[in-house]
Amino acid sequence: MNNNQSGLDIVLVHHPVVNKIGETIGSAVTNLDIHDIARTGKTYGVDSYYIVTPYKDQHKLVYEILHHWKSGHGATYNPARGEALELVQLEFSLEDVIETIRRKRGCKPLLITTSARTQEKSLGYSQLRARIEHKEPILLLFGTAHGLAPEIMEMTDYCLPPVGAGTGYNHLSVRSAVSIILDRLLGVPEDAITES
Amino acid sequence: MNNNQSGLDIVLVHHPVVNKIGETIGSAVTNLDIHDIARTGKTYGVDSYYIVTPYKDQHKLVYEILHHWKSGHGATYNPARGEALELVQLEFSLEDVIETIRRKRGCKPLLITTSARTQEKSLGYSQLRARIEHKEPILLLFGTAHGLAPEIMEMTDYCLPPVGAGTGYNHLSVRSAVSIILDRLLGVPEDAITES
Repeated sequence: MNNNQSGLDIVLVHHPVVNKIGETIGSAVTNLDIHDIARTGKTYGVDSYYIVTPYKDQHKLVYEILHHWKSGHGATYNPARGEALELVQLEFSLEDVIETIRRKRGCKPLLITTSARTQEKSLGYSQLRARIEHKEPILLLFGTAHGLAPEIMEMTDYCLPPVGAGTGYNHLSVRSAVSIILDRLLGVPEDAITES
Repeated sequence: MNNNQSGLDIVLVHHPVVNKIGETIGSAVTNLDIHDIARTGKTYGVDSYYIVTPYKDQHKLVYEILHHWKSGHGATYNPARGEALELVQLEFSLEDVIETIRRKRGCKPLLITTSARTQEKSLGYSQLRARIEHKEPILLLFGTAHGLAPEIMEMTDYCLPPVGAGTGYNHLSVRSAVSIILDRLLGVPEDAITES
């Protein structure tokens, strides 16, 4: 593995996820999920940000957005945005993502899910942080809509505990959840950051 | 002060902020800034989420969005969203926010800015966390566009250090920055959260 790489990839899943009554659905891609999560991923040193959707028209839409910021007018207007969007890779299924990573890194990554509810197979933030520091290949999974479908929870290795402050309300956007979780896993203490 | 209150308010400033070449401007309100930041604020126990814009048409737009989720169709479709949006209060200027808080809490809050760059008058996260635990009235300021204007930086008490991971890239959305900063200030360690 390239020494500049962290070993950590993230994936935003649009299918299979569940709706508010627990049925498995496919959700539509949200423009700000592409931007915000790529910007957070780039800020925290994530290697790739995979977006999974089985729908071809959604792939077309995402490619048009990426083109605008990576090579179109957006690239001149705001080059830093294109730099973040270089992280984005589109795939049709989670299995395709795992296969892509297997080819890139030479082995299957450790699959870690995230959830607003406590799940079985829990792994703490400090434990996962230590594994990231050892550059173990890790894929962190985030769900859209009302969360990852049960079949994904079953096929993965561990689940991170919910973030929050114990207020009894826990309805973060996936953009917020990714930001908080990456800061807990990769964030540098304030006195260790030197300005670039 | 009500014992259920944290003492912490946040404000998202749309004027005065700076554009990419450092000129003072007023920015437009982004729909997802209303939603994401209210959801994060409610999850972390913030008392009020102030939105500052001097433009009357922007107030009208925000009130329509709030009405939809607090009393309109959105309130039936997703009651949890309305609960988060109860935190939102619209004001025309930062001075108006400070006056509202002074009336609510009986004193002027400590004004804390946030920035992607290191500023003078720095206050660490652990130091501010301790002051929040003592329920000192605090107003945390976030800027839209390319950040809070210099006159705001000058009138405030302290600035939090930039968040991130020391990668040299630091272009978080304000939605992500709010999420990470509230988790650093109010987040509960994983083993202390019990499911609601």
